[in-house]
Amino acid sequence: MNFRLQSTDPRSAARTGILSTGHGDIPTPVFMPVGTRASVKSVEPHELLEQEAHIILTNTYHLYLKPGNHIIRKAGGVHPFMDWHGPLLTDSGGYQVYSLSELRRISEEGVTFKSHLDGSMLQFTPENVVDTQRIIGSDIMMPLDECPSSKADREYIRKSGELTIRWAERARRHFSATAPLYHHPQMLFGITQGGTHSDLRALSAKALVDLDFDGYATGGMAVGEPAEEMYRILELSHTLLPEHKPRYLMGVGTPENILNAIERGIDMFDCVIPTREGRNGRVYTRKGKMNLRSAKYAEDFSPVDEGFGNHVCKHYSRAYIRHLLNVGEILGLKLCTLQNISFFMWLTRTARQRIEEGSFLEWKAGFLEEFNRGEA
Amino acid sequence: MNFRLQSTDPRSAARTGILSTGHGDIPTPVFMPVGTRASVKSVEPHELLEQEAHIILTNTYHLYLKPGNHIIRKAGGVHPFMDWHGPLLTDSGGYQVYSLSELRRISEEGVTFKSHLDGSMLQFTPENVVDTQRIIGSDIMMPLDECPSSKADREYIRKSGELTIRWAERARRHFSATAPLYHHPQMLFGITQGGTHSDLRALSAKALVDLDFDGYATGGMAVGEPAEEMYRILELSHTLLPEHKPRYLMGVGTPENILNAIERGIDMFDCVIPTREGRNGRVYTRKGKMNLRSAKYAEDFSPVDEGFGNHVCKHYSRAYIRHLLNVGEILGLKLCTLQNISFFMWLTRTARQRIEEGSFLEWKAGFLEEFNRGEA
Ligand SMILES: [Zn+2]
Ligand SMILES: [Zn+2]
Repeated sequence: MNFRLQSTDPRSAARTGILSTGHGDIPTPVFMPVGTRASVKSVEPHELLEQEAHIILTNTYHLYLKPGNHIIRKAGGVHPFMDWHGPLLTDSGGYQVYSLSELRRISEEGVTFKSHLDGSMLQFTPENVVDTQRIIGSDIMMPLDECPSSKADREYIRKSGELTIRWAERARRHFSATAPLYHHPQMLFGITQGGTHSDLRALSAKALVDLDFDGYATGGMAVGEPAEEMYRILELSHTLLPEHKPRYLMGVGTPENILNAIERGIDMFDCVIPTREGRNGRVYTRKGKMNLRSAKYAEDFSPVDEGFGNHVCKHYSRAYIRHLLNVGEILGLKLCTLQNISFFMWLTRTARQRIEEGSFLEWKAGFLEEFNRGEA
Repeated sequence: MNFRLQSTDPRSAARTGILSTGHGDIPTPVFMPVGTRASVKSVEPHELLEQEAHIILTNTYHLYLKPGNHIIRKAGGVHPFMDWHGPLLTDSGGYQVYSLSELRRISEEGVTFKSHLDGSMLQFTPENVVDTQRIIGSDIMMPLDECPSSKADREYIRKSGELTIRWAERARRHFSATAPLYHHPQMLFGITQGGTHSDLRALSAKALVDLDFDGYATGGMAVGEPAEEMYRILELSHTLLPEHKPRYLMGVGTPENILNAIERGIDMFDCVIPTREGRNGRVYTRKGKMNLRSAKYAEDFSPVDEGFGNHVCKHYSRAYIRHLLNVGEILGLKLCTLQNISFFMWLTRTARQRIEEGSFLEWKAGFLEEFNRGEA
């Protein structure tokens, strides 16, 4: 049993637990910073630990292209390669095939696509994506899936969902038939699809549960549908997915999305918001978002979030970070990214505490009111 | 007495000492990393300390333009502004006026120039440059000087040197007539000029010594003249400058330049090499320079400098840093910069140890042989 439930909120589906991996235990709910190409933008692994990050995500598609499986295998996997000694999750790369590469062609066998880097033709199959993640050595692997466009019609989503189930079955079988390459165990999660169609989501969830994965992800959400639709699907998943397995909402999201999803029983999140927004000078605080590029902070010597107590707020002022961004110093982007990572880690950590204390819903309402009233 | 000589090499002019400032003692010889705009490219102050940096340099010209004196004054100086609590030296900005700005016009009063940022007309005088450095709060201030082009003829250099002496006198007087704005003392160094003309250098040194500065810089070197010319001038300075004041060679340089200058009695150095080369993926090791962008390091999992023992070499491989540079991850530039800073700190720290042990010349010869045989 990799996942142990700890407490459940009597007034919602929110819950806390511990997910155990070969690189340590992860308290849930948890937010995973994204290190697409084996680097969380400008931040070193020891700094991730200092922001209390428990697990990070890297991307199979990008690592497969560069540095490539050959080099990762020689490095002994991504953990030693990037000097991250904590838990690591890899997505399957499917989403990047659909969003970044041209000329993709989906068949029963897998997906053929043109590398967005050098134009070479490549193929991902459910089996070789497992193989690549064996080489990466991630603690949690994801199977190849198809992510239909949010504009796809019901019939397309139905067929695509069936293909994703067949691929999941092949991934599951290949996962069982192969072994980790390094000295730690690996898990494989399933990914439900089905768009916003309740019946298709239910079919998908049921089929994946029969395949007995180590955890279950909800894919294909936050692709443009109204948030209420996403919440409805999460509520449905809650009734269909096994209670004692971790639940992961892929690619989500804003603080509000995350808290609403925690309320609906989600345990794990990943999103590029902290790193991407940080690179643009936008920082998250308990009192809302701020754009530190703004001249209004030029003479504001207060910390980004007074009393927040993290590294950035203890050492630097809004005025200094604004100066760095204003003159184009890289350090500005790094400090904004650090601030955002520590904010998102604080968010899920605090949600966890509040669930344990039985005050999650009150805290969530109060936090969101203050956050949304904020400076952004 | 701010400077205390500790040991001198019986076989050369090399020496060790302690320069005391309001932000701590500096063991010399010392290399000062450059943080032009109140940031040492991508590196945080606590990381500078971890690389054993003792003092850093920021630039009066750049800080005067952005964020400007008003904001620095409100911040309480550059130390709290950038969260650097160690010694800080500021150059006068004169060099940047000559190298960056158009339409500069030098008169007896000072230098008028067009901001390279917004085209506004500005004036630096010996007095207002002291005032700006009072606002910055640097532990060591430099007076406004003129840096003639290396192609200037003797007559130009002679007249320019005389102007620099008159400016030095005005700066010295204004320094005495004003007081620090914050709660720590400030020093003012003199800058000798005179190109590679021994007699003009001697005139300059003599006049500055009469003005009794806290230390003496050799300016206008490493601007294209042969290294042997620079060494000749340093040997001359050695006989003209007071033994019990620190000597600073501005803007220098390569490891070889630095060690040859230490041999000739120089105590302090600054140079953009570690940060600029780091940003281009070039790293310094005891076995020479390496360009980590090169594909030849793609599968080289050894540290940048085996056994060097610094943060970068303890945690990361050549292959990983090469991957970061290859995919454009900012972290690559940062790790190269950190490596270079720790290398230059090691270089002057080791020179200091060897002078104390009486083995400086042997160590220098052996180091340079290995360094120059290296991978670059
Ligand atoms: Zn501090
Ligand atoms: Zn390590």
